[in-house]
Amino acid sequence: MKKFTSVQDVADLNGLVKEALHLKENPYQYKKLGENKTLGLIFLNPSLRTRLSTQKAALNLGMNVMVMNLDKEGWALETQDGAVMNGTTVEHIKEAAAVMGQYCDILGIRSFPKLQNREEDYSEDLLQQFISYSKAPIVSLESATRHPLQSLADLLTINENSPAGKRPKVVLTWAPHVKAIPQCVANSFAEWMGQADVDLVITHPEGYELSEEFTAGATVTTDQQEALERADFVYVKNWSSYQDYGKVLTDGKGWMLTDEKLEATHNAKVMHCLPVRRNVELSDEILDGACSLVLEQANNRTYAAQAVLKQMLESL
Amino acid sequence: MKKFTSVQDVADLNGLVKEALHLKENPYQYKKLGENKTLGLIFLNPSLRTRLSTQKAALNLGMNVMVMNLDKEGWALETQDGAVMNGTTVEHIKEAAAVMGQYCDILGIRSFPKLQNREEDYSEDLLQQFISYSKAPIVSLESATRHPLQSLADLLTINENSPAGKRPKVVLTWAPHVKAIPQCVANSFAEWMGQADVDLVITHPEGYELSEEFTAGATVTTDQQEALERADFVYVKNWSSYQDYGKVLTDGKGWMLTDEKLEATHNAKVMHCLPVRRNVELSDEILDGACSLVLEQANNRTYAAQAVLKQMLESL
Amino acid sequence: MKKFTSVQDVADLNGLVKEALHLKENPYQYKKLGENKTLGLIFLNPSLRTRLSTQKAALNLGMNVMVMNLDKEGWALETQDGAVMNGTTVEHIKEAAAVMGQYCDILGIRSFPKLQNREEDYSEDLLQQFISYSKAPIVSLESATRHPLQSLADLLTINENSPAGKRPKVVLTWAPHVKAIPQCVANSFAEWMGQADVDLVITHPEGYELSEEFTAGATVTTDQQEALERADFVYVKNWSSYQDYGKVLTDGKGWMLTDEKLEATHNAKVMHCLPVRRNVELSDEILDGACSLVLEQANNRTYAAQAVLKQMLESL
Repeated sequence: MKKFTSVQDVADLNGLVKEALHLKENPYQYKKLGENKTLGLIFLNPSLRTRLSTQKAALNLGMNVMVMNLDKEGWALETQDGAVMNGTTVEHIKEAAAVMGQYCDILGIRSFPKLQNREEDYSEDLLQQFISYSKAPIVSLESATRHPLQSLADLLTINENSPAGKRPKVVLTWAPHVKAIPQCVANSFAEWMGQADVDLVITHPEGYELSEEFTAGATVTTDQQEALERADFVYVKNWSSYQDYGKVLTDGKGWMLTDEKLEATHNAKVMHCLPVRRNVELSDEILDGACSLVLEQANNRTYAAQAVLKQMLESL
Repeated sequence: MKKFTSVQDVADLNGLVKEALHLKENPYQYKKLGENKTLGLIFLNPSLRTRLSTQKAALNLGMNVMVMNLDKEGWALETQDGAVMNGTTVEHIKEAAAVMGQYCDILGIRSFPKLQNREEDYSEDLLQQFISYSKAPIVSLESATRHPLQSLADLLTINENSPAGKRPKVVLTWAPHVKAIPQCVANSFAEWMGQADVDLVITHPEGYELSEEFTAGATVTTDQQEALERADFVYVKNWSSYQDYGKVLTDGKGWMLTDEKLEATHNAKVMHCLPVRRNVELSDEILDGACSLVLEQANNRTYAAQAVLKQMLESL
Repeated sequence: MKKFTSVQDVADLNGLVKEALHLKENPYQYKKLGENKTLGLIFLNPSLRTRLSTQKAALNLGMNVMVMNLDKEGWALETQDGAVMNGTTVEHIKEAAAVMGQYCDILGIRSFPKLQNREEDYSEDLLQQFISYSKAPIVSLESATRHPLQSLADLLTINENSPAGKRPKVVLTWAPHVKAIPQCVANSFAEWMGQADVDLVITHPEGYELSEEFTAGATVTTDQQEALERADFVYVKNWSSYQDYGKVLTDGKGWMLTDEKLEATHNAKVMHCLPVRRNVELSDEILDGACSLVLEQANNRTYAAQAVLKQMLESL
């Protein structure tokens, strides 16, 4: 694997899932593979789960890890081609990416969207330039439009918890939030579920339609309760509008998931990528109850990252 | 050992001290013990000695270490049970602690008191919630009311420098400072000395009485010179008022420790946990002189942490 | 080697260059050397290349690395001897350096000049105090007046790219910038070239003369085009005035290096330490063209650092 930025980068999705579950059984069995190999983790935004789970995954494989908060410890990056750099940016991504690629065998990078200009965000300019200018394989640690390590961990979790002998019904439901949140996790989840052996239903208030490039094959409805009927998994997530880009269109009162709403489901398991705003997106009763898979999703982040890193190490 | 937050968590204090001094002789003899084990160090406040010595201790045991400045690199934590998280906190400690405990075999956490509400600080809410919600063993890297790794290092240092065949007299003396400082180090030192084979005298200006839960067995006086009489060790430390909580009651002129004051002692060794405000808490002449143990205390931080981590690794 | 702060600390320059090139061929051949040894990297300023390449170098030698952003994660340092520390500084360098030297076998430190007081900056007070108070060997990661790891990497790069059988002509040319930049890289490059088998010409606008302590043996001219004549290497760098200390005296229009100017050279290779302001210091055409060595310089940072660390480890 040369890059891991979306489900399209995965040649064999079932194989990758199996790899991850195999690593989960014995995380240390490939410690020789990463010997003398270095993973560089570049953060332009905060991170807890991704930071720690990806480090852990690399250490499990015997790699060295160098973490850099580029926004705080390094220099402001220029991404414009041909820019006359007489402003506030100190280093062009051409040099920064190339240099970091020389020091590291694999690079991970996190860069959030600004939510101001849809075309700019959806061009994935920064991520694409990293790929172009760095010779090292690149793992997205969440980019402007996707969060593939999260989606792989989500798929592992669904796999482990699916009712036997049945194609599960998975519902992605929009939830309220207090600020404008990227579409990344929702886009990415929809895109991965589209490749998985599940029935996906997406529900959200009007105006929150995701870009169709991610939702192919899914049923989309604005009726949350109808969507939840006989669901096996309910994935809760807020996102800001894609149409009226980056905007919060409604306070969403009534969309918070509660035990009462879950009654219509098929004893559904509840998922969220974390961090979660308790009692805004999801009620305490669900998060603290038996149907919550949120901690197991977070736990699976390690093995998702480890499977990706393993395949990259094997193709170095 | 399942947690290390105060001297009460130590089943055999003499054994732990012996362990640490044994590790100091040959720090690398247990490098197999930490293989494939990860220590997570979570900082909500600045740290130099604790950060580096605890990392070093873990590396000496063959562990991997992941360091996270949660205040800067992660998300603002909610600690209130039942909170409707529509404000500035992004993640509840229930999730954060549980997730980090999944990625790490042992967690260390530093969180200072706010010095605004005594009950809140002395409830050690954040530390207790970390313990409750994380399944990993927890090491306090300084909490709202205690600094146990410092106290263990202090006890090692006293052990190594005690006059032969004598129960030493140890004086904890308040010192001036320019701002309001937590009571942690003083509380903790008093509490540990209470379990050690020493005579403890505590001296401070009126109004600086520590909570009695820490000072049992100690002689307390507001006469600094009387306290210093024939002392073998003088531990210098500022703290803000416990009674008039978090307040600075006096500029403390006259309480700075000097060579002249030390004349009354039994050639006392002088201790301080660092960082120290030179010529405010302690004079240059003492810090640069032969009686200062401050660097040796800092050095012993490594072996204190290593002994604790070793016992935790053994009980995983 | 006990310290590495300037070319004067290198007993055998040719030997050090050979060592570095030897390590570049097989970076992992001395992994036993660094076993149980710890490198501490202390940053008081941002860093990308130095941070990552020095970490990488240490990992290649089997060392452990602890990185500390002292400005953000630790305490504000006092450097004044005899200071009454009742202001904003929290810890004296006497303690900080001594303590970090206890936890680490080798320390690297980065501290930029303030460009306000020439005497203060050129006294290298902070670096000298680190050396005095820490017992560990010290590597400069760029100090107020020099950047020796960069200069060693530059020398390696010149060595690898020199025309056969010829003493190369090396030109250090001043370039425009948008803000006041230290003289470190220019000073250091001049100083190292003065010890190397090259002819050095330095060119800059009037008022930008470097201190003569660094430029001994070099030809200095304010005529850039004359300087470039038949050059084999052109090293591009901005610096603020040494005479009118820290000031920007001219916008330098006309000093940016372009392909046109390079025509007078002997197919010169172009060098820059990075980060570079594109189309201000250097044109895109050069940076993206075949004559640029900037990425190779950055790559050689690893082996420069590794050679220095290796010699330090050998003399522990």
